[in-house]
Amino acid sequence: MTESLRIKRLCLIGVGLIGGSLLRALRRAGVVDEIVGCGRNRNSLETALKLGVIDRIEQDPAKAVLAADMVVLAVPLGAMQSIFTVIAPALAADAVLTDVGSTKGSVVKAAERAFTALPNGFVPGHPIAGTEKSGVEASFAELFDGRRVILTPTANSSPAAVSRTRAMWQACGAEVIEMDIAHHDEVLAATSHLPHMLAYSLVDMLARRDDSQEIFDYAAGGFRDFTRIASSDPTMWHDIALANQDALASLLEQFSLDLQKLAEAVREGDSDYLKNIFTRAKQVRDEFQERGKSER
Amino acid sequence: MTESLRIKRLCLIGVGLIGGSLLRALRRAGVVDEIVGCGRNRNSLETALKLGVIDRIEQDPAKAVLAADMVVLAVPLGAMQSIFTVIAPALAADAVLTDVGSTKGSVVKAAERAFTALPNGFVPGHPIAGTEKSGVEASFAELFDGRRVILTPTANSSPAAVSRTRAMWQACGAEVIEMDIAHHDEVLAATSHLPHMLAYSLVDMLARRDDSQEIFDYAAGGFRDFTRIASSDPTMWHDIALANQDALASLLEQFSLDLQKLAEAVREGDSDYLKNIFTRAKQVRDEFQERGKSER
Repeated sequence: MTESLRIKRLCLIGVGLIGGSLLRALRRAGVVDEIVGCGRNRNSLETALKLGVIDRIEQDPAKAVLAADMVVLAVPLGAMQSIFTVIAPALAADAVLTDVGSTKGSVVKAAERAFTALPNGFVPGHPIAGTEKSGVEASFAELFDGRRVILTPTANSSPAAVSRTRAMWQACGAEVIEMDIAHHDEVLAATSHLPHMLAYSLVDMLARRDDSQEIFDYAAGGFRDFTRIASSDPTMWHDIALANQDALASLLEQFSLDLQKLAEAVREGDSDYLKNIFTRAKQVRDEFQERGKSER
Repeated sequence: MTESLRIKRLCLIGVGLIGGSLLRALRRAGVVDEIVGCGRNRNSLETALKLGVIDRIEQDPAKAVLAADMVVLAVPLGAMQSIFTVIAPALAADAVLTDVGSTKGSVVKAAERAFTALPNGFVPGHPIAGTEKSGVEASFAELFDGRRVILTPTANSSPAAVSRTRAMWQACGAEVIEMDIAHHDEVLAATSHLPHMLAYSLVDMLARRDDSQEIFDYAAGGFRDFTRIASSDPTMWHDIALANQDALASLLEQFSLDLQKLAEAVREGDSDYLKNIFTRAKQVRDEFQERGKSER
């Protein structure tokens, strides 16, 4: 499938970890002729140019997308709508337009506000990959190898555009699946957005203690792994939390209640309750770990 | 300091990941002459013998401790009291007795119940190290290299016994500190026990969903790290939760309230609240990570 893919001019708006890694992976696959990098941060773009990740810089999004047959938005969720609005009049009629936003309902809404009608070339997407680092310096071609990319086509997305977007991600080594927009947001709230909120909240709660310095001194490896995602970009996660408000808030409330019950069980010495939770969770986590291994 | 340490006969009761790693590290340091392994699981002991981790097997704790100048209890917290009771009459008068339990108040209480008076040779201890694995097969000599071991001497602990216990852990490559018993339990509740409860609870909550299979299918690397500690031994963590009831339940309640507030902020789109938490947490987590690097 990837053999047939040829991108003549790819315009990437937002040249950071995800966007940069996408470009590196497409270079590796040898499926793209020219790459135009666009973004607000000039230094970032210069770095990307030096690293050979992009071929040229164009800071005006409307100019950057001109004659591009593939346009990828890898900007923070909060910036999607303004970018859509600026590029709407400039997009080539046959351009495929996709994004890498972590929530999909909000991106589609932003596009609806910016375009008179959702373009047939628009295929919302979300690569399930990343690290707690950010910036094009941290990008690498292998980021998507064996990872999943979820596409959430709109009612207007043309089969040809979906197919091209799919081929692009497959060329990057990813496995591509399609999902309903709302379902995507619910699944991701559970597996990604909620864990990030928990990691941030835990570190924050401990940081507010009088003995916080000591607390972190005695934290061991498990704590390091558990809180790694609290090093993620705060602005990005602010945007994600507000872009997936309902699903995320519901899960937070549910989890908060679960913890109240757990606290009660600990206080009352309810052995069965604790053993049930821990045993069930270990089993599921071990299965998950095994599946992850076999995928790699 | 380690040069002066010579253990003639070490008796380890509970030959698992922690105990096994301690023995391997002491062998590596060449400071122990003979090692007696004791435990309920015969297979485990046979494995330890085959691996050369112990020199001989003695399944009766009262016999195992005979003539040992160093006795280490690495059994689950729930088993401490019965072991203390059995070995109390058999311990050599000059033996140093220590343990590796994750909570210290409960271990001291168990000892108080088993001994007429807390022995001068008794020095409660807690190595801040481990993996989510268990069993002597998973043990390795490097587990304590550069890690901290907290000793919580009782009012009866003799300086000589504290010094020998300290020297033992230093010979294993660990940094040894002393701490008040109650303070240890509070610090560990925050950095270790609470995170484990959160990981278990999160996996359990997701496992109970109708779409749990799919949920885990789309979970990415961050989730894998975040939930790693949910693969820890359920019985051990049941014991820990009940051994540190008050400190842990209080933290769970506090965290539950924090999450309710966070849920509210997400629902109401309180940008400042979210940005404050995420930014503060990232800063603290990054500092913690840097400190960890410089320690290694």
